[in-house]
Amino acid sequence: MSDATTPEKRSTAKAILDAAIDHIEQFGVEGMRIERVLADASSSTGSMRHHFGSRAGLVEAAQYEIYVRTLLAESTSNLDGGFAATTTEEFLEYMSVQLTRIASDPVARERRMTRLRVFANASTRPELMESVAWLQQQLIEVTSGVFRSAQSRGLINASIDAYDYAAWFHGLTLSRTFTEATMPDADRWLAVAIPAAHALLRPEQ
Amino acid sequence: MSDATTPEKRSTAKAILDAAIDHIEQFGVEGMRIERVLADASSSTGSMRHHFGSRAGLVEAAQYEIYVRTLLAESTSNLDGGFAATTTEEFLEYMSVQLTRIASDPVARERRMTRLRVFANASTRPELMESVAWLQQQLIEVTSGVFRSAQSRGLINASIDAYDYAAWFHGLTLSRTFTEATMPDADRWLAVAIPAAHALLRPEQ
Repeated sequence: MSDATTPEKRSTAKAILDAAIDHIEQFGVEGMRIERVLADASSSTGSMRHHFGSRAGLVEAAQYEIYVRTLLAESTSNLDGGFAATTTEEFLEYMSVQLTRIASDPVARERRMTRLRVFANASTRPELMESVAWLQQQLIEVTSGVFRSAQSRGLINASIDAYDYAAWFHGLTLSRTFTEATMPDADRWLAVAIPAAHALLRPEQ
Repeated sequence: MSDATTPEKRSTAKAILDAAIDHIEQFGVEGMRIERVLADASSSTGSMRHHFGSRAGLVEAAQYEIYVRTLLAESTSNLDGGFAATTTEEFLEYMSVQLTRIASDPVARERRMTRLRVFANASTRPELMESVAWLQQQLIEVTSGVFRSAQSRGLINASIDAYDYAAWFHGLTLSRTFTEATMPDADRWLAVAIPAAHALLRPEQ
């Protein structure tokens, strides 16, 4: 990540968020003491409420950034299978495995819900949304690399826009969360989501 | 909607929600007086906070139910084009029009965001989630009728599960909201979403 932010951009919200991340990484969410976070950030409860609504809002924003930082750091391993694919079928199988993991793994499920809550939270806080959107864009750009690479190797349809597909796919994976209560069986969702995700990737006949 | 709920099921949360809906429909969100809503529901601020977290939580839950009631009432008109289709291409065009409306129309955009916030809100309140999930299930069942009908008329792939497709599609439409900040141009999202939604509907060759 670039460190070329201006002092103005390294705002109060960012200072509070960074301090919260440090504390959560050291002590966990339960062990995070809000007064120590604010002391580290040289900030106040009022500022915290202004920028994040509540302790819960700050915790979710921090979890989101932790999650995305982790995801970006780990992206190589999650994308490995896609970069390693040597045939169209291998690439499509890689997509199936990723979708299945995202839809079925309890850790991924909890992360999706956290991201949904952070996003809903950010929707009424423009500054937080700006930060969430920036992180999301990094994620989509990293992910789009695997599609671009597969296109250059002739494995998938070269006429789709890799970034737009990655952005759509990002939404698709998060969308599973909406129907977990009404359709708990992930396989039913995957039976639609996998062929839909595959359809655009198949090279044109 | 069925009125066969038991007195137990017509809980405090439901009484507060119904009163809030009445008031919002009469006076709008700005004109809704929380103390009058609670008086109508014979309930307290404590109960309201317990069930909905805050006035904002109650307003969003009420908006969601108003929206879904409206949607169910209007469903015939939104589904008309699908029921009227006489060829596969007409049905696919109907799907394109619906996706375009949902992704581009400012009213639909605001409704999607409201639903996302209500859902995030409900994720930590099991009773509210139960109500949200029930409404969502009605919506998916109504929507699945148009796919089932098109299957029976031989217009679309008969081997897909109409309910599962409708549930997936419901998630897909809501998922557009996640990338509005990073990819504001709805056409870029539609360029992926439309062919993906179409792919499963095409009759098997």
